[in-house]
Amino acid sequence: MLPSAIQKVIDHFSRLPGIGQKTAERLAFYLLKEKPHFLDNFGNDLKALHSNLVFCENCHNLSEEPLCIICKNVKRDQTTLCVVEEVLDIIAFEKSDSYQGVYHVLQGVISPVNGIGPQDLTIETLKNRLINSEIQEIILATNPTIEGEATALYLYKILQPLNLKITRIARGLPTGSDLGYADKLTLSNCLKGRQAI
Amino acid sequence: MLPSAIQKVIDHFSRLPGIGQKTAERLAFYLLKEKPHFLDNFGNDLKALHSNLVFCENCHNLSEEPLCIICKNVKRDQTTLCVVEEVLDIIAFEKSDSYQGVYHVLQGVISPVNGIGPQDLTIETLKNRLINSEIQEIILATNPTIEGEATALYLYKILQPLNLKITRIARGLPTGSDLGYADKLTLSNCLKGRQAI
Repeated sequence: MLPSAIQKVIDHFSRLPGIGQKTAERLAFYLLKEKPHFLDNFGNDLKALHSNLVFCENCHNLSEEPLCIICKNVKRDQTTLCVVEEVLDIIAFEKSDSYQGVYHVLQGVISPVNGIGPQDLTIETLKNRLINSEIQEIILATNPTIEGEATALYLYKILQPLNLKITRIARGLPTGSDLGYADKLTLSNCLKGRQAI
Repeated sequence: MLPSAIQKVIDHFSRLPGIGQKTAERLAFYLLKEKPHFLDNFGNDLKALHSNLVFCENCHNLSEEPLCIICKNVKRDQTTLCVVEEVLDIIAFEKSDSYQGVYHVLQGVISPVNGIGPQDLTIETLKNRLINSEIQEIILATNPTIEGEATALYLYKILQPLNLKITRIARGLPTGSDLGYADKLTLSNCLKGRQAI
């Protein structure tokens, strides 16, 4: 029904997560009104997405060089290591300006349902990294989901023999939230994790 | 903070309507896991979006040739003309399989706030099209918004002298909706437009 040039773009967009048919149509028609210059840049940058991108050989963060800018930064606190699920989690922490240590990206979580076991994550690199390192504390910052908690527990068990301080990020009520709308588990966690003022 | 290859793609996505910073990041990281083949196609098709696309010289629908596939289709009912705001509205009607006539795309609505007057729409082409045509009925299918209603009223006034049947799409409660949640104007319209069973 639609000319193929626009139908193709709609099809591409509708393949993306969270974008349905209607939204894909809106986006394609929006782009139709954009200048060719913008479309050219968008198209070229999409094609070049994989070029020059590697995973940091130390922490598995996205990088343009063998070592990412966080691992290369000597000013970062090399004694604290924050273990996260994905590269996006690093961005979130960095934006919060609340962490000065280094990271390790697991590149996923243990998820038997999806057939993902510990061997599919970067746990081996993590263990090798801890040998003869300056690291004193490991912060387990996987998501507070069933899979994230299970992964944190697994990591705790295998890292415990190293005699390092191992911590888990706090679980409780997020800022600006409302007790009345919180789920049972969050309420239970915000009581369990209560602290002296 | 992020490698420029991925940052650029995030920036492009976040410029699109309805896509914020977080969603743009998710989309870019999703694409990172896609095969280069898919990214190449997506990129090329974006760059080619404007190529081979013109507006039908008869009805202003999107087309690859001077006349769009609806205007070229001799099986369509040439006596009924449906006036819509945008090309996407044609797609919606066509998907509903409920209309066999021809269309006219206004390419917008009269909107004094946005500085869009009747002269910015395809009203002149519409008037020329009605001269010596087979058209017997004009369906005003602009959106039931303030601007859409104003545009329909304007069109009614200037088309009235032609002595054609001019109709407006029905306004009332959509299928599957709930009287209790309907707004006042919709309820008023569903009473005004009531029909004998």
